[in-house]
Amino acid sequence: MKIDIHNHILPRTWPNLAERYGYGGFVQLEHSEETSDSARMMKDGRLFRVVQANCWDAERRLADMDQTGVTVQALSTVPVMFSYWAKPADTADLSRLINDDLAATVARHPKRFVGLGTAPMQAPLLAVEEIKRLTTELRMPGIQIGSHIGDWNLDARELDPVWKTCEDYDCAVFVHPWDMVMGGRYSKFWLPWLVGMPAETATAIVSVLMGGVLQRFPKLRLCFAHGGGSFPYTAGRIDHGFRCRPDLCAQETSVPPSEQLGKFWCDSLVHDAAALDLLTEVVGKKRVIFGSDYPFPLGDLHGGKIVENLGDPQLRDDIFAQNALDFLGLERSAFE
Amino acid sequence: MKIDIHNHILPRTWPNLAERYGYGGFVQLEHSEETSDSARMMKDGRLFRVVQANCWDAERRLADMDQTGVTVQALSTVPVMFSYWAKPADTADLSRLINDDLAATVARHPKRFVGLGTAPMQAPLLAVEEIKRLTTELRMPGIQIGSHIGDWNLDARELDPVWKTCEDYDCAVFVHPWDMVMGGRYSKFWLPWLVGMPAETATAIVSVLMGGVLQRFPKLRLCFAHGGGSFPYTAGRIDHGFRCRPDLCAQETSVPPSEQLGKFWCDSLVHDAAALDLLTEVVGKKRVIFGSDYPFPLGDLHGGKIVENLGDPQLRDDIFAQNALDFLGLERSAFE
Repeated sequence: MKIDIHNHILPRTWPNLAERYGYGGFVQLEHSEETSDSARMMKDGRLFRVVQANCWDAERRLADMDQTGVTVQALSTVPVMFSYWAKPADTADLSRLINDDLAATVARHPKRFVGLGTAPMQAPLLAVEEIKRLTTELRMPGIQIGSHIGDWNLDARELDPVWKTCEDYDCAVFVHPWDMVMGGRYSKFWLPWLVGMPAETATAIVSVLMGGVLQRFPKLRLCFAHGGGSFPYTAGRIDHGFRCRPDLCAQETSVPPSEQLGKFWCDSLVHDAAALDLLTEVVGKKRVIFGSDYPFPLGDLHGGKIVENLGDPQLRDDIFAQNALDFLGLERSAFE
Repeated sequence: MKIDIHNHILPRTWPNLAERYGYGGFVQLEHSEETSDSARMMKDGRLFRVVQANCWDAERRLADMDQTGVTVQALSTVPVMFSYWAKPADTADLSRLINDDLAATVARHPKRFVGLGTAPMQAPLLAVEEIKRLTTELRMPGIQIGSHIGDWNLDARELDPVWKTCEDYDCAVFVHPWDMVMGGRYSKFWLPWLVGMPAETATAIVSVLMGGVLQRFPKLRLCFAHGGGSFPYTAGRIDHGFRCRPDLCAQETSVPPSEQLGKFWCDSLVHDAAALDLLTEVVGKKRVIFGSDYPFPLGDLHGGKIVENLGDPQLRDDIFAQNALDFLGLERSAFE
């Protein structure tokens, strides 16, 4: 069994959001013709990204999954759709649109897909409502959120009601980097994706660990994308920083980062066998989950070859299946 | 023999730079009394950092070095002194002040110290002049530079004359992160140092590798601080990015990052044995140099315990001595 915790899907189409909400900034998917294999993600009339049919078409995804031996995809939206910058009621409305579409796809293929919903995190009480709805009515096991919410890192006390709800409703939280610094020195060499995203994810992990989030919410289950970004390799530096400058680092909790390892998950998407070894050593063999970033080219489109090459069959199964089931709170039998 | 490639020193005192140049923004060192053990680095009358006597007093350093078994320190200034933002002629003047002080310290203890000078990198032709002066008149084996220069990353063509001079004058270049994003979301948990610095260094490495700098200047010797920042763990992602989006990444060179490994050095300062293993595996056993960040608390003040614990005696000596000698272009006998 191979469960892919990290991949993205869009509805085939959705209402014109600028018309629906009365202002721009949202992404729309522009299909050139009904049967076209690619479509253009447009933001205020400008091209954001070209995507292929496997970004919206469940049947295409299933064909690819069969080819790479992926049993289950935990579907989540594309982070640009988070729209945390919009008016809270509008992000809540858009979240419902996206989550209903996700749930419909899962309902058609309940042994091949589960849904990770989205929520208006910038308005924690609205996010709480949507998390209650998606875990109960839509029966989703979790959500995907951004590595930060506007000016808040994940330690912001404003988010505590969300974490409380995730604990109470057994809702797993997949954290994805987004909203990186762009332009200027970062205009070349895909730097926001290659360096910015790993830094975003490390910022999220440090904020959770030094912010005492897991002390306040010990049952909260968090999984961080792209092998934890730059965190695992810099964990020694980060822990040493916590210990040598408690005046800067230990104001919210006295538990050092190193003592919180094993309390959160990371996906396996590091593109390198030695890095995967370091990851399992740092965060724990039970805390790494296969993730592909399918269908995007920066992802692992070969279905986890590096994981397949691991010598230890127990570790292989843990990364491919058991650790995801633990994180999502699901039973293996649901997909057999 | 233990050579420490990464540590910082200041002159005990220097002229009032605001008076000398006619504008503020520079750092001064404020000693409360002649014999005080600590001093305040002040920036425009505000406290920047408190430092101890070992930051300016060579005798204190020698005592600490004897205690931790460090044979040689490659001295460099504190990055805040780079002052690349100032008027070029003023940065050139300040560089000469700093370099002359460095050279004087080295001259008093030529078997215990070598100097890595500083240069006005924002004005490449002035930097060229200072590099010629410090390598010939002051007999320094190298310089320390920032991870970026104003709006330039290290691939900026404006810097090519500097790299050419470093090749011609056999000048090693130690690259130190600085000028990280501060404030806002980065106000807490020492994030600019714990996450920002590793991202800065990865940005510098990616810019060098994808910018084709080592193709244009194959004899250039670069060493990156803090174990290469977040680069080594994300090298797989970076290489995959180069290969899957050549339109964004391969415009300056067709040589992928993975094929340029072994062509640059990193210091060993990762605070973690597993991370040090990954580092040597990624950049090469002959390309990791002991670095401590002495005398600052985020550094390794125990003289390389993680390196000492390595099982392989050849690798230990390479990291502690031979790799530094290769990088600096110096003979072991100079320090025996």
